[in-house]
This record gives sequence, C-alpha cells and structure tokens, in this order.
Amino acid sequence: MIHSWRELSQQVEAEIAAFDFSGKPNELYDPIGYTMTLGGKRIRPTLCLLAAQLFGGDLKKAMNLAMAVEVFHNFTLVHDDIMDEAPIRRGKPSVHAKWNRDVAILSGDVMFVQAYQLLAKGNSEKLSQILSVFNQTAIEVCEGQQFDMNFETRNAVTATDYIEMIRLKTAVLLACSLQLGAFESGASDRKANLIYEFGEKIGIAFQIQDDFLDCYANPEEFGKRVGGDIISNKKTFLMLTAVEKADKDQLIRLEGLMSQKISDDDKVAGVLGIYNELDIPNLTRAAMQTYFEQGMHAITQIEADEELKKPLISLAEQLMNRKH
Amino acid sequence: MIHSWRELSQQVEAEIAAFDFSGKPNELYDPIGYTMTLGGKRIRPTLCLLAAQLFGGDLKKAMNLAMAVEVFHNFTLVHDDIMDEAPIRRGKPSVHAKWNRDVAILSGDVMFVQAYQLLAKGNSEKLSQILSVFNQTAIEVCEGQQFDMNFETRNAVTATDYIEMIRLKTAVLLACSLQLGAFESGASDRKANLIYEFGEKIGIAFQIQDDFLDCYANPEEFGKRVGGDIISNKKTFLMLTAVEKADKDQLIRLEGLMSQKISDDDKVAGVLGIYNELDIPNLTRAAMQTYFEQGMHAITQIEADEELKKPLISLAEQLMNRKH
Repeated sequence: MIHSWRELSQQVEAEIAAFDFSGKPNELYDPIGYTMTLGGKRIRPTLCLLAAQLFGGDLKKAMNLAMAVEVFHNFTLVHDDIMDEAPIRRGKPSVHAKWNRDVAILSGDVMFVQAYQLLAKGNSEKLSQILSVFNQTAIEVCEGQQFDMNFETRNAVTATDYIEMIRLKTAVLLACSLQLGAFESGASDRKANLIYEFGEKIGIAFQIQDDFLDCYANPEEFGKRVGGDIISNKKTFLMLTAVEKADKDQLIRLEGLMSQKISDDDKVAGVLGIYNELDIPNLTRAAMQTYFEQGMHAITQIEADEELKKPLISLAEQLMNRKH
Repeated sequence: MIHSWRELSQQVEAEIAAFDFSGKPNELYDPIGYTMTLGGKRIRPTLCLLAAQLFGGDLKKAMNLAMAVEVFHNFTLVHDDIMDEAPIRRGKPSVHAKWNRDVAILSGDVMFVQAYQLLAKGNSEKLSQILSVFNQTAIEVCEGQQFDMNFETRNAVTATDYIEMIRLKTAVLLACSLQLGAFESGASDRKANLIYEFGEKIGIAFQIQDDFLDCYANPEEFGKRVGGDIISNKKTFLMLTAVEKADKDQLIRLEGLMSQKISDDDKVAGVLGIYNELDIPNLTRAAMQTYFEQGMHAITQIEADEELKKPLISLAEQLMNRKH
C-alpha cells in the first residue's frame, strides 16, 4: 500500500502530538512543546517519510529522522525569530516574545540537541552518512540565514547570489530531509544523491515561486497583500533580475520608486510596470521552470517503483501550481 | 612515554592554532576563529586526551573528540555571554559585544554543528555511545544554565539544588570529555562510566572550591577582589549553606547585610562573621573533600596502568590545592 502525502503528514502530526517534550526546568522545555505544536505543513518530515517509502524502508524507523528534521527546522525558526525580531509565528507569539530572548536562545539550543538525539536513532549502518549530510545542511542553513541578513544592507547583490542564498537557507534542508529518508532505507549513495538533488532543485523553484506570487498572485486567493515585497524594498529574485536587466533610465526610475515617498499602491504599480517592460514575469517563470525540470530529471533517473515516486512528483507539481 | 597534562594541553593549543575556522560569509566564521583563539586553559580537551592515553588510545584520533568538546564549550560561552550580557571574555570583547547579538547567536549555532562534525570523526565502532553521552551532556549544560538563571530570581534555593546546578552546568562536561577519550580508546562501558564519575565528582568539588576561594583566598594570590560573591548577593554554596544552618537571629542579620546599604567592606566582614559563627568554612571544605574523595574512589577502581592515572590524579590534587 502506497501512502500519500496527506497520510504521512498526518502521521507526523500524530507523532508530534504524542511526543513528550516536557522536562525540567520548565522555562527550558515549555517553549519546545509550544513551538512544536504551533502547526505548520510538516513538509520536511513528510518528505523524509516519502523518501523512505520510495526506497522500501520501514516508515516507523524513518519517523525518528523525520522528527529530527522537524525539530531542527523549528529550532531555526526560534533563533531566526530573535534575529528578525519577529513577534508572531504562525499567528501566535514567537518564543522570544512570549517568554524572552534568553529562553529563546537556550530552548533553541536544546531543540538542536534533541534533533541529534533523534538522528542518533537512525539506521546504525548509515549513521555516518546521516550525520554527515545533517551537519553539512545545518551549517548551510546558518550560512543562508547570515547571507540573507547581509543582503538587507548590502548593495551589490546579484540574482545568482540570491539563488545561492535561498539554496542554503531553504532548499538544502528539503533535500536533506529526503536524503535522510533514503539513508534510513539503505538506499545507495547514487540514489540518495539523486533524491537530494530533486529536493534541492524543487526547493529553489519553490522559493522563486514565492517571490513571483508576492507580485502576481490573484489577490483574492493570496491571503496577504500582493506587492508586499515591493513595498518593503525586499531584494527578491524579481527585483534583482530587474536591476540586472534595466537600462540606465529604467534603473533611475526603479531607484526612484524605491526611495521616494509615494503611496504603496503607486509604488507597486510603478515597479510592476518596469517588471513588465523588462519581461520579468516570463524570466522568473523560466527560471522556476528550469529548476523544476532539473529536479524532475533527477527523480526520473532513480531506479525505483514509479508508483512510489508519484506522491513526490505530484507534490512538486502542486508546489509549482499553487496560488498562495 | 607518558604525556603530562602540560604536554597534551600544548598539543591542543597547537591543534587549535593550526585549525582552519574560516568560511563564508565572514560574519559567521570570523567570530569562531576569534573565540577559539582567545585562550583558556583547554581543560576539557586535555582531559579527553589524558583519558584516551589512560586507556591506550591513539591520541591523534582522540584529538577530534578533544576539539569537539572545546568547540562545544566555546559555543556555550558565546551564547552565555549574550544571556549574561557580559561585554568581556578572557579580557577581550565578547562576540556579541564585538559584532552583535545576531552574529553571536548564529556563529554559536555553527560552532555547535562543528562540534558534531568533529564528533562524527570519532571511533566509528563507538559512535553511538559517543553521540549519546555528548547529546545528554549538551542538554544538561543547557539545563544547568537555565537553573543558574532561575536561581538569580528564585528565593527558595537549597544547597542541594545548587550542587545539582553546578553538576549540570560544569561538571558533566568535564566528565563527558573524559568519557569521550575513553570511548575513543575502546574502553569498556564500566571503565568509561568510572572515568565519567571521576570527572563529575572532581568537577563539583572544583566549583565548591571556586565559591570557597571567592571568600577565603589570600587577596595577594587571588587576582580579583575577595568577597565579590558576597557583595553581589550571589547564591553560592557557602551562602545557601549558611541560610540553611542559620537560626532566626542569624538569618535576620544575614538578610539585613544583603539588603541594607552599607559599604562593601562592612558587608563582606559582616557576612564572613556569620559564616564563621556557623562553621561554614569547615562545612564547605568537608563538602569539597567528600566529592574529591568520591572522584578519587572512582578512578581507583579502574583497572589500568597506575602510571597513566597519575596525570589525572595530580591534576585533581592541584585543582583542590589551588589558590585562585
């Protein structure tokens, strides 16, 4: 029986609901249970389980690694929210807002260790590979976060720099989640590398899609204000590509829109006008499509039951066709 | 040839000096090299190597685990300095003071991963035990830090609570360092547990000694002001024991000294007077001696070349007879 995305994400949710995150002192452990049960789509652990299923592994055993990536991901959110001074996470107060900075630092550190405790329960024959990809990924996620913070104040950022940043900050953890599921199931290095590449490329496509939707989503379906990135002068793939493609006149107009005091509506309309002149929507769609195809090419090369690939492929397709 | 404490700590220092801590982005990696080369006694990695030597291990291989505990220890200092808002570390600006809070959080996180990268190079046959003791220790160190922060504002703290706090915050990492050296050398679980116990008990004795010296060191040898803990109303082993032993009149006088606006000299003299009435110096020495003897008992039980135990025993003795 082949488990769908939905079934496995529900299994993850049930596992988290049943997991005992309590401990002493309370100040350290309460925020962990709080964070882990705030919700979220559980994308990373579900990817891990789908990869384990693809390679014929025991899903119950793979759940340890699935939980490890989810705990790690939530740890990064707790620390990122301090750095970004974000008061809200998933509609609730973030940990540093609900408790305080020190609790958020230290609870986050404990979550990081808990991720390793879960990893250590992984396939003992593959423990070295499991640790290796996880360590590399954890460092890359930190590098991505630092690049992202640097970009806010750095002028000379290219679209290539940006792709590398989103690869590090987001895509590698999706890739790692899949690869851990593969290692748990005893997949060969070749297969584990191909499923990693699938996750990495789809992850990059997904992030570019995020930037695209922020400008071009249907406002009724989007759930937040279209053009938010433009209003906040965010260096997105679209903006960086526009800056690279713009001629002198367009660049002056673009910089004017970003620095002048004009209404948000005028700013969004003005920037979108320049994006259209520069064919940015099509260039962005093309970049997305390229990464998407690279990801699909990687999964195609894996020798495995095609039926078992379907939940992963359909997830990738859904991500590309989403409206919000 | 038996390597002394001094020789092995110099090997650690040389390893750190030769280690490449650089990486991109600079903001993330510069603070790591900075922190790791600020100095310090390198107690934990040297303990790891001495334990590896005791059990006949390859010191070169054990260096990876030695480095892991030193990187982990320095990671905890980087995060603790944020929480304690400490501007100075080893006479230089702390990371959050020299760079900023976010850099200190994120560089610390990377150091944490680097510790695991070094651990993963340990004895592959013992990797599961290596990870297990390290994970448990890392969590306990966080718990100890949280208890320590809680104690600052909590009234009902007992000397027993305090011992548990210093065990978690300091002693277990010394114990873990020794046990990692044992595992690397393929020591049996029994021996690894005994060397752990040695480190844990000596570590507790060492911390009680710290509190003792703060009150009773020879001012000329101590290097900082004697009585600093009394002046800052710190809940030390001495103070907590005094509060427990005091009768009603002594308790009122003690609380008066801690809350009244009097000169530092009068406060120190007043509190030391009460300590003497309550025999606190002898009670503290007795507690120290008890933990010291428990540690020595543990190492005595280990079947190993007595000559190879000597550097560890003489270190423990030096720690107990130190003047500052």
